[in-house]
Amino acid sequence: MGRWEADAGGRLQYAAMSLYFERGYDAVTVAEIAERAGLTKRTFFRHYADKREVLFAGAPAFQAGVVAAVAAAPVDQAPVDTVIAALAETGGAQLAQYGEWARARRDLVESSADLRERALIKSADLAAAVAAALRERGVAPGQATLTAHAAVTAFTVGYDRWADGNGVGDLPTAVRETLADLRTALTPG
Amino acid sequence: MGRWEADAGGRLQYAAMSLYFERGYDAVTVAEIAERAGLTKRTFFRHYADKREVLFAGAPAFQAGVVAAVAAAPVDQAPVDTVIAALAETGGAQLAQYGEWARARRDLVESSADLRERALIKSADLAAAVAAALRERGVAPGQATLTAHAAVTAFTVGYDRWADGNGVGDLPTAVRETLADLRTALTPG
Repeated sequence: MGRWEADAGGRLQYAAMSLYFERGYDAVTVAEIAERAGLTKRTFFRHYADKREVLFAGAPAFQAGVVAAVAAAPVDQAPVDTVIAALAETGGAQLAQYGEWARARRDLVESSADLRERALIKSADLAAAVAAALRERGVAPGQATLTAHAAVTAFTVGYDRWADGNGVGDLPTAVRETLADLRTALTPG
Repeated sequence: MGRWEADAGGRLQYAAMSLYFERGYDAVTVAEIAERAGLTKRTFFRHYADKREVLFAGAPAFQAGVVAAVAAAPVDQAPVDTVIAALAETGGAQLAQYGEWARARRDLVESSADLRERALIKSADLAAAVAAALRERGVAPGQATLTAHAAVTAFTVGYDRWADGNGVGDLPTAVRETLADLRTALTPG
């Protein structure tokens, strides 16, 4: 967790997750998070809009990384392979930091309607950004939308499987295996 | 729109959608919806929790219809074909009522972060209910989750395409064509 403690944003994130795990999301206030981090409420609100956002602090960097990887990918790849590689490699580099906390964080998000809504919005925004990046590369709009949604589904379910394994296995491998399973699931009878 | 006007719930839905289209979602109050429908605020809150829910009034019946169709489907079908048939036929029967309002309703949902969140929650709940119905039929949990998510994606995008066409075409056909496009999008390079 060294990276999280380096600056105020990281300390607040660490403090928030620790408190949410200890007492449940609803019971924790912003004042308590700030106190645990040794900072003020004012500093909290300079970094995060509310006590939900602190759990999704990495989302903008993750989305930007995925979009950049899609833009930089070889042009001779199938779009779905481009997107899965971008999600898996960026996720492996940026989300693997949750490590042993991955499962607990996922369960925390599932425990609250508020957090679940925010997570769904983040996924939908990510899919929309990926679809736009594919259209930039000349992929037809209909195919771009479906490819983005399917790849984000494979990533999300693959991430869940990785989190179920307590973040011990390799995230990119879990995502690629999930894409293969998604193809199998879509095979006509 | 005859069906909506038959009872208080339907009259409130019709009044709400008319007002949202006229003035935008944010500008309309529950009191105005009730007044337009010739009913009281108290009657509104007997039917709907808030001014968001009135736009998703059909969701519980739609989800129940889809789950029942999955449970009743022939057992020799591929799970994805079972789910797409359930979504397409139930959607064709229940959502086609929006008719010429389908595109305007979809644009309205996209216009508001609140409504978009609610729509995403409804889709996630639908996918979870479909996955549970598949597990009931003996489909392995991992395959059930992926099949449900992929099928709901095909339905959602197919519904959007149908709405783009102003609800004139056939919804089940749009959904089946979108599933075919999703399979193409997932073909490896």
